[in-house]
Amino acid sequence: MAIGNALVDVLSTEAEEFVTAHGMVKGSMDLIDTARAETLYSAMGPGVEISGGSAANTIAGVASLGSTSAYIGRVSQDQLGTVYTHDLRAAGVRFETAPATDGLPTGRCLIIVTPDAERTLNTYLGASSELTADDVDGELVRGAAYTYLEGYLWDSPAAQEAYKLAAEIAHGAGKKVALTLSDGFVVDRHRDTFLELIEGSVDVLFANDVEIQMLYEVDDFDTAIARVRNHCELAAVTRGPDGSVLLSGDDVITVPVEPIPGGTVVDTTGAGDLYAAGVLHGLVQGRDLRTCGRLGGLAAAEVISHLGARPQVSLAESAATAGIA
Amino acid sequence: MAIGNALVDVLSTEAEEFVTAHGMVKGSMDLIDTARAETLYSAMGPGVEISGGSAANTIAGVASLGSTSAYIGRVSQDQLGTVYTHDLRAAGVRFETAPATDGLPTGRCLIIVTPDAERTLNTYLGASSELTADDVDGELVRGAAYTYLEGYLWDSPAAQEAYKLAAEIAHGAGKKVALTLSDGFVVDRHRDTFLELIEGSVDVLFANDVEIQMLYEVDDFDTAIARVRNHCELAAVTRGPDGSVLLSGDDVITVPVEPIPGGTVVDTTGAGDLYAAGVLHGLVQGRDLRTCGRLGGLAAAEVISHLGARPQVSLAESAATAGIA
Repeated sequence: MAIGNALVDVLSTEAEEFVTAHGMVKGSMDLIDTARAETLYSAMGPGVEISGGSAANTIAGVASLGSTSAYIGRVSQDQLGTVYTHDLRAAGVRFETAPATDGLPTGRCLIIVTPDAERTLNTYLGASSELTADDVDGELVRGAAYTYLEGYLWDSPAAQEAYKLAAEIAHGAGKKVALTLSDGFVVDRHRDTFLELIEGSVDVLFANDVEIQMLYEVDDFDTAIARVRNHCELAAVTRGPDGSVLLSGDDVITVPVEPIPGGTVVDTTGAGDLYAAGVLHGLVQGRDLRTCGRLGGLAAAEVISHLGARPQVSLAESAATAGIA
Repeated sequence: MAIGNALVDVLSTEAEEFVTAHGMVKGSMDLIDTARAETLYSAMGPGVEISGGSAANTIAGVASLGSTSAYIGRVSQDQLGTVYTHDLRAAGVRFETAPATDGLPTGRCLIIVTPDAERTLNTYLGASSELTADDVDGELVRGAAYTYLEGYLWDSPAAQEAYKLAAEIAHGAGKKVALTLSDGFVVDRHRDTFLELIEGSVDVLFANDVEIQMLYEVDDFDTAIARVRNHCELAAVTRGPDGSVLLSGDDVITVPVEPIPGGTVVDTTGAGDLYAAGVLHGLVQGRDLRTCGRLGGLAAAEVISHLGARPQVSLAESAATAGIA
């Protein structure tokens, strides 16, 4: 099961200049307020709306691969909240967090996709920022082999409490806790508490090469991964087109990328989320780490072949076709 | 300028069986009520939301090709209405119809895309059905070289009055009126009034091969086009992969399809709408009929290469690259 910011993605393809003209750091995530959201949306071209949210994308991927899945996150009782709830349930994910009946609207992420397929995220949290420890369904967490937490929500103190409670419940039931670092700036803002969390309560850590180096404030990849292997049971680190590395005890398993359906990278939104989905599904199903990494690569390759961060085909069928099972 | 049903498309790819199991006629448009909309939406997989509406797609295509454009259609003052308004304006279309502040929500079209790329439309009209003659902005119509009307709205008596008024204003200002037949079942429901309208007030008629045969209740294409040439100044009839035929006076111009970007037909939603966009842009710019047909083929080829019925690239640039100008 997963906990995260429930966000509807609004995707628009723009020229490189758009990113710089609006003061964005390409490839990163920026938290924006209502005024900035309105300014940016007005400046963006026609959009495509697709349900997103990092941990929700991951859990939708887990469901598509065939594992049981559930999600905790908050939307509002508005049109976008209805769309969000429909999409997650239609993906096969159990989703029963009560929608907010007043307050902020359903959160959204304004995503600028540049011609190089890179995505730059501008997140208006809206109702998703109102997630608290009260929303953590203990029965769901106790029943899940893995509880997956997204680093993005670390920006909200109330959500941190929700995460800590979920981790405590999971470990109390003898289950595992997984975390993704989410974003370099998020890591930078919360380095101390992340390190504390990882050493104390994270069994499986997901990160990309930039995030893991930022976490340990080191300049090279090898130093970073040497550090992380003592901090959690398993670390799965992605390196974009160079595939991924899985570290567990003395094992270092390097896994290349999988072929992209159609051959073209269209939109990298969700690449890390879906990599995590493949690894988590593999772990739940008791697969060896190399297979877990390949499942991650397969799910990531599918999601970057089209616009949006949710799988558009059955990943279980894709895995069977690719002979990864 | 164009007048039509303002609808947000909700697209989902489903197996062939979904269409038959839910009693749909593949490739057609069905008007659905709230209860049916809820049942179908619950049954559909995760969706992608993209602004649509037949005439709005056409006018967005006209804008993308570089002609001045405006739209009249009604949304509600809700989240989907905001998205709709943003998308149309961001596409460069003047859109100032006042949104409804109460009553029905913004209309939507639940679109089932089958693996053969065919689309089946289930339209919940919502606020779009509240369009009346009062919404016809006389100044816009008088200023437009062409007023384009979509047959879909013929199901609403109030909208018929709006259309008739718009046609009268356009002709009074010495401008042209264009109509698309939209759908075989729509033609069947309104054959008499369509024939009356076409003979009396339509200068340019758009249709596909099925619709034109249904209009005249004939079994073959040649008989149908022999009939239509006496009824309006120009008829542009599409034939799917066989291209299109433009008929004007004694001229019969056959135009083949243009190559599909990427080579694959993903979703045929909007093919006819964008064909009309290319032809209208060509007419406005004073191009010869063959060039008009090629521009239509170019715009249609782009829109069927991806999910959704609005162009995702600058069609003006595509036309320049293809050497059609």
